Amino acid sequence: MAAARRTRMSPDERRQQLVALGVAALADRPLEAVTVEDLAAQAGVSPGLVHYYFGNRQGLHSAIVRTARDAMLHATQPRPELPPRERLRDTLDRFVEFVHDHDATFYSLVRGAASGDEEVRTTVQHARDVLAGHLRDAFQEIGVADGPLLEVALHAWISFAEQALVEAATDPQITASDLADFLERSALGVLAALHPVAQPH
Amino acid sequence: MAAARRTRMSPDERRQQLVALGVAALADRPLEAVTVEDLAAQAGVSPGLVHYYFGNRQGLHSAIVRTARDAMLHATQPRPELPPRERLRDTLDRFVEFVHDHDATFYSLVRGAASGDEEVRTTVQHARDVLAGHLRDAFQEIGVADGPLLEVALHAWISFAEQALVEAATDPQITASDLADFLERSALGVLAALHPVAQPH
Repeated sequence: MAAARRTRMSPDERRQQLVALGVAALADRPLEAVTVEDLAAQAGVSPGLVHYYFGNRQGLHSAIVRTARDAMLHATQPRPELPPRERLRDTLDRFVEFVHDHDATFYSLVRGAASGDEEVRTTVQHARDVLAGHLRDAFQEIGVADGPLLEVALHAWISFAEQALVEAATDPQITASDLADFLERSALGVLAALHPVAQPH
Repeated sequence: MAAARRTRMSPDERRQQLVALGVAALADRPLEAVTVEDLAAQAGVSPGLVHYYFGNRQGLHSAIVRTARDAMLHATQPRPELPPRERLRDTLDRFVEFVHDHDATFYSLVRGAASGDEEVRTTVQHARDVLAGHLRDAFQEIGVADGPLLEVALHAWISFAEQALVEAATDPQITASDLADFLERSALGVLAALHPVAQPH
């Protein structure tokens, strides 16, 4: 604390430090319980300074969620040089690793989808749209017909993956590679389910 | 209204009428906006009588959500006389039909999963557990290894189906049978994804 108090930081560095402390706080408590006062005490600055950077608590929460979202999107950015199936698998491996290492951050994002705060909801919805876009790219390169069911399938599979990651990424009985295998195979199963039904049931 | 006011009802009938009005109100507004006063006015009774039956607004909301949940579970009750694949498909056909006909009820249940009201959340979670149990039965009869990933898969697929039903069940571009096809095929795809990986990727 004393060290933090002594540190000279540029406004940008200070802002980043405060947001990083806010993201780290999610390990102990839900976003709604992260306050300007707690964060100020942790950083060794005045609440007034936190208000100066973020406005009110809502502004602070928005900044925390945007940073958490960007960290997740950065960690799960597809590698364009890979062919679509390998790219999907590589992205899923890194997704499982991210949720394993930053489970509280990920849970906050998933919970944020139902937040009473519209800006938090919008931030999380943007992340889902980006992830659905990555999956759409992979599906289209592998081969899939466009149509209204494709969009439904993409969003539904994002919900599927969120639920599986929340439940399994920190389960010691499930290895990271088994979980990534399962997610990969289920995504390809959903892709297959989109193909026009040729065979009888 | 006048007719409602004139009707003599037993306490049980009156209670059922009030809950049914509450469920019907979900077509116009979210559960949180359904008040004792509105419902009393609609039924032509005093707010005091509604309080008598349900206690406070929270009690009213719990009764509404339980009734909505039971309607959904009743409509999607599997037919035990059918073999597992046919039973799954038959259940999905009825699920699509239920959400098509009662979309507001279904949306309220899905939103209730993230409610601030613990009793509402518990009621919705119970529905998900029942649905996951039906899917577990079908998967086990078709053939699947027990294990931690099976439970993850069941819950993840329920999230998948919820999202797909919310998005597609009232989309005029998507027929009920196409949606049920897609749900059936994706469920079987998830089942296949659970099998130990025998072939290389």
